[in-house]
Amino acid sequence: MCRWLAYTGSPILLADVLYTPVHSLIDQSMHAKLGAETTNGDGFGVGWYGTGPAPGIFRSTEPAWNDQNLRELSGHVRSPQFIAHVRAAIGSSVQQTNCHPFRNGRWLWAHNGYIAGFDAIKRDLVLAVGESLFGEIKGQTDSEVLFYLALTFGLDDDPPDAVARAIGYVEACGRNRGVSFPFQGTIATSNGDSLWAFRYSTEGNSRSLYFTRDVRSLRELYPDREVLHEVSDDTRLVVSEPIGNLPGAWSEVPESSYGVVGRDGDQLMPFTTRVPHKVP
Amino acid sequence: MCRWLAYTGSPILLADVLYTPVHSLIDQSMHAKLGAETTNGDGFGVGWYGTGPAPGIFRSTEPAWNDQNLRELSGHVRSPQFIAHVRAAIGSSVQQTNCHPFRNGRWLWAHNGYIAGFDAIKRDLVLAVGESLFGEIKGQTDSEVLFYLALTFGLDDDPPDAVARAIGYVEACGRNRGVSFPFQGTIATSNGDSLWAFRYSTEGNSRSLYFTRDVRSLRELYPDREVLHEVSDDTRLVVSEPIGNLPGAWSEVPESSYGVVGRDGDQLMPFTTRVPHKVP
Amino acid sequence: MCRWLAYTGSPILLADVLYTPVHSLIDQSMHAKLGAETTNGDGFGVGWYGTGPAPGIFRSTEPAWNDQNLRELSGHVRSPQFIAHVRAAIGSSVQQTNCHPFRNGRWLWAHNGYIAGFDAIKRDLVLAVGESLFGEIKGQTDSEVLFYLALTFGLDDDPPDAVARAIGYVEACGRNRGVSFPFQGTIATSNGDSLWAFRYSTEGNSRSLYFTRDVRSLRELYPDREVLHEVSDDTRLVVSEPIGNLPGAWSEVPESSYGVVGRDGDQLMPFTTRVPHKVP
Amino acid sequence: MCRWLAYTGSPILLADVLYTPVHSLIDQSMHAKLGAETTNGDGFGVGWYGTGPAPGIFRSTEPAWNDQNLRELSGHVRSPQFIAHVRAAIGSSVQQTNCHPFRNGRWLWAHNGYIAGFDAIKRDLVLAVGESLFGEIKGQTDSEVLFYLALTFGLDDDPPDAVARAIGYVEACGRNRGVSFPFQGTIATSNGDSLWAFRYSTEGNSRSLYFTRDVRSLRELYPDREVLHEVSDDTRLVVSEPIGNLPGAWSEVPESSYGVVGRDGDQLMPFTTRVPHKVP
Repeated sequence: MCRWLAYTGSPILLADVLYTPVHSLIDQSMHAKLGAETTNGDGFGVGWYGTGPAPGIFRSTEPAWNDQNLRELSGHVRSPQFIAHVRAAIGSSVQQTNCHPFRNGRWLWAHNGYIAGFDAIKRDLVLAVGESLFGEIKGQTDSEVLFYLALTFGLDDDPPDAVARAIGYVEACGRNRGVSFPFQGTIATSNGDSLWAFRYSTEGNSRSLYFTRDVRSLRELYPDREVLHEVSDDTRLVVSEPIGNLPGAWSEVPESSYGVVGRDGDQLMPFTTRVPHKVP
Repeated sequence: MCRWLAYTGSPILLADVLYTPVHSLIDQSMHAKLGAETTNGDGFGVGWYGTGPAPGIFRSTEPAWNDQNLRELSGHVRSPQFIAHVRAAIGSSVQQTNCHPFRNGRWLWAHNGYIAGFDAIKRDLVLAVGESLFGEIKGQTDSEVLFYLALTFGLDDDPPDAVARAIGYVEACGRNRGVSFPFQGTIATSNGDSLWAFRYSTEGNSRSLYFTRDVRSLRELYPDREVLHEVSDDTRLVVSEPIGNLPGAWSEVPESSYGVVGRDGDQLMPFTTRVPHKVP
Repeated sequence: MCRWLAYTGSPILLADVLYTPVHSLIDQSMHAKLGAETTNGDGFGVGWYGTGPAPGIFRSTEPAWNDQNLRELSGHVRSPQFIAHVRAAIGSSVQQTNCHPFRNGRWLWAHNGYIAGFDAIKRDLVLAVGESLFGEIKGQTDSEVLFYLALTFGLDDDPPDAVARAIGYVEACGRNRGVSFPFQGTIATSNGDSLWAFRYSTEGNSRSLYFTRDVRSLRELYPDREVLHEVSDDTRLVVSEPIGNLPGAWSEVPESSYGVVGRDGDQLMPFTTRVPHKVP
Repeated sequence: MCRWLAYTGSPILLADVLYTPVHSLIDQSMHAKLGAETTNGDGFGVGWYGTGPAPGIFRSTEPAWNDQNLRELSGHVRSPQFIAHVRAAIGSSVQQTNCHPFRNGRWLWAHNGYIAGFDAIKRDLVLAVGESLFGEIKGQTDSEVLFYLALTFGLDDDPPDAVARAIGYVEACGRNRGVSFPFQGTIATSNGDSLWAFRYSTEGNSRSLYFTRDVRSLRELYPDREVLHEVSDDTRLVVSEPIGNLPGAWSEVPESSYGVVGRDGDQLMPFTTRVPHKVP
């Protein structure tokens, strides 16, 4: 079980999102309310777009709640788009290469959930990863393998379709091995321009996921909140669980759906997986 | 807030005490029931008597629940007396030199609790530490300073008296600075021969502390429990909170008292602090 | 580049081998003389046989020279057979799962050297690992993949043959991809009963490897050395580079050969790789 | 033994100074040429001025040469003034609170060298630290205690005088205890506006220290070097040892002197210590 947060909008100091809110992600590292576990102390990571062609990532195996370097970095880096994650390991090692977000080129990827029976189907899954991508898998996690499947299945060209096929492939391989509900979770992925967030599980009972209502509506609701006048109209947060408690500010992402936030506006769409042609 | 455990008796594999029990100390690192906090994820330590004149110590800043090296060590080291501790930092850094147990010569020391207003009186306290001991303070914690006060006040000669004077000194310094309840906590200390455990707080409302009833009584209660026939008659566990749920096995250490377990048998005695002659 | 050490013989305190000698392995972590690099500061590990069916392992990403826990453990654990390793990473991450020795069941495995062009042939190599073993590969290194190839090719039954086939397979895959000299290095592996040490490289110019002459000869040479009377006749050290400077005590393992030390005595044999039947 | 680097001038990507140069500070973490040791692998730190009133600091116990987070941060943070340090511990623990630069308010402080006999005089020294500052000492090092002495003796008002008194106090305390040459080293300190660099040792044989010649002269020498046209006229580097090998670009800071670089231009001045009035 993990918790993640994705921000897109006006450039903002990371700390204003990661530390300041009453039930911030850092607070959720020790006191998650809606997760399978309250403690997410097995490392953390943040990936942000800013200077340079690729996003920066800062990941550590320490619990986020006491990490001084995360606090320093967050207090000095501004970014218009970033993804942060606190981890509760299930089985795999506590090491930086297992910490989210994962990065490949311009892409960042974070996941809350699991591939059921991963040990049994890991070999099938990594064999489907493109040969040129295979060597770039650095860690042990199901989440990273899923990322590389999505990259293999066209994340660059059509992100929702690539994710649909990656999870569809996981489901097919899992069912071949007798796993009833192979996939569970929520996913955040970004290329620096747009941000996609997915909520899906084979059993139709997925991990929680929320997003902030559009800023213009929030300004009408709360005309006196200064922060709402400071951020741009297209600013959005997508989170495993709300980091604040402003009534009316948070909407739940519906079961089996995905959202995209980017330059061309926002969309919330139903999500179904696709069985790829070739299954081992 | 922290949790600790002290064992004395027949040589036993550390893992049999640290990992096997249903509510083991490792479990308490994530799911403490009786503490001020449920999570004790800011490092851990174990000190054990065995080979060599001084006890060994193994301390790490990782949460205990996922530490592979602790698991390995515990599965391969046997000891007749050891103290283990899982830490929840309050203010001081997460670093090995702040992890309990602390060691000096033959002595080990672990503490659950705090010195109230420590920042304000730290200077007064360290000035009272013997000059030859001053340079051996390695970390930042109130617990370690208390250990060096106890060493200064005669831990080698009369442990209960030295601890009474150390805490008494803390109380005197604290009150000088307007702190109403300067000390809170439980302490485990050992020299490899005997083990002392203290439960005390200035306000008379101390952190929890339990010990196992004597093994002979337990054998009568549970004649079929094999483990009770394997351990020697003088085997004892003292713990922040019970690691098992055998009815009748655990007794609470009364408020304001201390116990000693050693070669000459066991004792449970009332504990009061002593105002030392010289207060700054 | 790395340095390793393997001990077999009378049970001995790890520190007596790892710390006490003038040019100990811990010293070699900062000041290696015969290696490709003088610094081996990217983690370390020690695996030892003792209590329990499987060996214990203690591995860390810290440089060995300053690791307090390694010092403590080494001062309190005795073992009749152990392998220690200090690491200089080439490309892969500094994380525990990349630290040697690797362990599987009763087996320990350490390697100094590399598989040339590993990124390009990694996929070919892991595909040849037995399906049931595939999920047990935890890290990213060439050395660990080689271990799992050896396990796949029969390490349990005939260690020299399994290693010959594993390296032969690496050579075949490498040459398929245009790599002239695919393998370089020395290997230590043990099952707790016997210890095998290999020195081999495709180009015939391998990393250094030494072993101690038999104890009886050493006693004749140095009748006054107490330590030589304390250890059993079958005690041996195999090392990347000598840890002491006693003239006549160290012999070089010849190029392209391997040695075995065990209950049935010692042997030093030529080593050639075998091309396995099935190459991708 | 350590190595440090201080930059002031046009805002620049940290990586352009820390990683790009041929003999960069990161390279010096493993291959220092002019230091007492070639390896500086016991942690590192960088403090930079940028967003916010106080400088940011990023410190870690890992060797700098393989730290992924330092590489990421350096590739994404720009700053007009920063101090970086790679550490070779002598005696004290490898922990973040012992890593340079140290920070207090707007001040950063880094040191290469030592206080001789520090264990013996540490108590004398910390007693001279202002009471309100005492609780802010976080680590164990001589370097940090010196920083707090300088703060106590007026670093805010007159940095060269405060440093002269701090070292003078160290020398007086050391001599009281029979230490002939109490202080050795170079110091970098900054308040975000100006940067001071000191080279001094009681014995008059100090650690190496270099600075870059003024940019205008360098442009005349090397009219084709693009980087020299990109940086402002007042850009300077001060370093333990040169990070490049451009002939004529580096000048040695003379023995027993200090330099200041800031808004009001540069100065290079002789440095002598001052015996403070009150010595214990």
